[in-house]
Amino acid sequence: MTEQDFPPEEFAERLGRAQRAMHTDGLDALFLTTEAEVRYFTGFRTLFWQSPTRPWFLVVPATGRPIAIIPEIGAALMAETWIDDIRSWSSPHASDDGIGMLADVLRPFSRVGMPMGRESSLRMPLGDLHRLQDTLDTVELVDCTPLMRDLRVIKSEREIAILRRICSIASDAFDHAPDLFRVGQPLVEAFRAFRIDLLRCGADDVPYLVGGAGPGGYPDVISPPGLTPLRPGDVLMLDTGATLQGYHCDFDRNFAFGHADADARAAYRTLHRATDAALAMARPGVTCADMHAAMQAVIGQDTGDVGRYGHGLGMQLTEHPSIIGFDRTVMREGMVMTLEPSMQIAEGRIMVHEENMVIRDGAPELLSRRAAPELPVIGAGA
Amino acid sequence: MTEQDFPPEEFAERLGRAQRAMHTDGLDALFLTTEAEVRYFTGFRTLFWQSPTRPWFLVVPATGRPIAIIPEIGAALMAETWIDDIRSWSSPHASDDGIGMLADVLRPFSRVGMPMGRESSLRMPLGDLHRLQDTLDTVELVDCTPLMRDLRVIKSEREIAILRRICSIASDAFDHAPDLFRVGQPLVEAFRAFRIDLLRCGADDVPYLVGGAGPGGYPDVISPPGLTPLRPGDVLMLDTGATLQGYHCDFDRNFAFGHADADARAAYRTLHRATDAALAMARPGVTCADMHAAMQAVIGQDTGDVGRYGHGLGMQLTEHPSIIGFDRTVMREGMVMTLEPSMQIAEGRIMVHEENMVIRDGAPELLSRRAAPELPVIGAGA
Repeated sequence: MTEQDFPPEEFAERLGRAQRAMHTDGLDALFLTTEAEVRYFTGFRTLFWQSPTRPWFLVVPATGRPIAIIPEIGAALMAETWIDDIRSWSSPHASDDGIGMLADVLRPFSRVGMPMGRESSLRMPLGDLHRLQDTLDTVELVDCTPLMRDLRVIKSEREIAILRRICSIASDAFDHAPDLFRVGQPLVEAFRAFRIDLLRCGADDVPYLVGGAGPGGYPDVISPPGLTPLRPGDVLMLDTGATLQGYHCDFDRNFAFGHADADARAAYRTLHRATDAALAMARPGVTCADMHAAMQAVIGQDTGDVGRYGHGLGMQLTEHPSIIGFDRTVMREGMVMTLEPSMQIAEGRIMVHEENMVIRDGAPELLSRRAAPELPVIGAGA
Repeated sequence: MTEQDFPPEEFAERLGRAQRAMHTDGLDALFLTTEAEVRYFTGFRTLFWQSPTRPWFLVVPATGRPIAIIPEIGAALMAETWIDDIRSWSSPHASDDGIGMLADVLRPFSRVGMPMGRESSLRMPLGDLHRLQDTLDTVELVDCTPLMRDLRVIKSEREIAILRRICSIASDAFDHAPDLFRVGQPLVEAFRAFRIDLLRCGADDVPYLVGGAGPGGYPDVISPPGLTPLRPGDVLMLDTGATLQGYHCDFDRNFAFGHADADARAAYRTLHRATDAALAMARPGVTCADMHAAMQAVIGQDTGDVGRYGHGLGMQLTEHPSIIGFDRTVMREGMVMTLEPSMQIAEGRIMVHEENMVIRDGAPELLSRRAAPELPVIGAGA
């Protein structure tokens, strides 16, 4: 018996909110295929989603409890959640990988929502979706992206408690930087040391760790580490999405080695001030566009290749909304957001800062331990 | 500059094979949206795929070089690969997240393949695919799953060299089991110790680690760890998909604590013999169904909830084909496969064994270090 991450009340609340929204939108059911959405309604958590072989389906009706239509290999684990209607088949299957069983569940409905919009994907073969639609010619499949994102964007206090812990764990690991990183260390070894420290500090997993290093800045923010050793004058950035019980932190820290050049120190201060500007205004009622404008005013550049200054955070490393000029999403209490201003220092050299926060009725609650106001230097004077 | 995992020749060879297959199938281009497929043709490797926000598109024409249509945030990293035609846009975008740019690339073609079959998914919003199809009414999108899986199922010696290293690393970590695991240790701490050891032994990442523990067996094979401590008589199974340069191992090991009951020891021997039976026959020309039958003959049960006795392995934790009765895929030299027989010991208690191998012209090459022939006991007599 695996301990559940949340009590059944958590899921009953999520289901209640979903069903009220489905009523408003005139939907008879939701049809979900992706990890975060299935977990949101069931609590079903497994790394087995890494295997692309088998599809997993969840149907959330407008009245009644969710129905899991899943491969037999997952039925025992699903039975430990609050879900009681579990229909399973032997998968992989020669001719019908769950589509007939899924069609039987969906057939009574007229209008079924599935995520088709921004940030969504389809985790089942497209051919099987077409086959499903052919057998369900009286069922209309419509986009339910706005409904799903409005549900998931507000985190419960139970979710926030987990997010607070994983952010604290990652803050602890970043505090160990002077003991973990050194001049001469290949970047791949710096990453390895940091991963191990995150696990030691209490993270369950480190599904995301990217970064870069270079003289006074780094070329991009999504690279895996290479073999090049850290050199004096390099700025190292590590950006981690470590997890606890399937919830992510997502923030980074910058460190200079030996000494920091004036441009890098100035960029660091600018990004720190930009974050302060967003933190100072982050309140219910403020929009993503407002926070974007406040940060851009401090930075004095456009968003560059990164394209935005932060985003939602939770079961996924990045979630709706985006802190970008066109996103008019209004902050509400319980939203968990990253603030992630970035700037170009010179051609091919950028810097990025990131913090995680919860929108509260008043000042936001910072989840990450606030970065130092000046670019930290490791091995100064060495 | 990040070191590339493979020289350009590797990708030229992949492209050549793909283009010959496209010619045979009458396809003008392939249209790909998923991590493994994009990486297969480009070498573009980043954990940034964890973020669902931005879509990534690759078009592989029947003549000429692949064209990457990707968000600006990835353009610098893509430029370090062998790809020279990179078209990027500022993403997230208010109204067009790359669809117009993608349509311009696809418009000259008549018949374009995209994966729609078994094990495939669509990593872009379904609504955007519909929008693309509406603007491309002269372009027919057809399933190219068989083509893609026939390409990817044969690994190059360069790929096998990486797979050999990650399997060796995981074998080293499993060899440390007596130092890592002990009675009284909560399962979550056993997992943590094993993850850390995998990293110390040289793994880049541990995206997959599942398992279970229980008296004489465990209830399922996909669970995350709980807080229950290991007890005398428990059998612990850990199944890991650790990675090196984006390639996975995927095998497990079983350990008893203090003592092992007779049923568990007998099941272990049966599964070891079943694996031997498959290893003895695994040659070019043998089918998945043949190996399945050989293992089933030893086990004397059906495949149960797991549904198969092994699968392909490579950039993904599980890949085509499946070792199952209906899969007639013929083994060819260079296929990398797991052998994963499992059996029920009693109601709610199963056991699973797993090894990784390369099909060779002759006996297969074992990549994992062969499991001990008898169930290992940790802390015997303690």
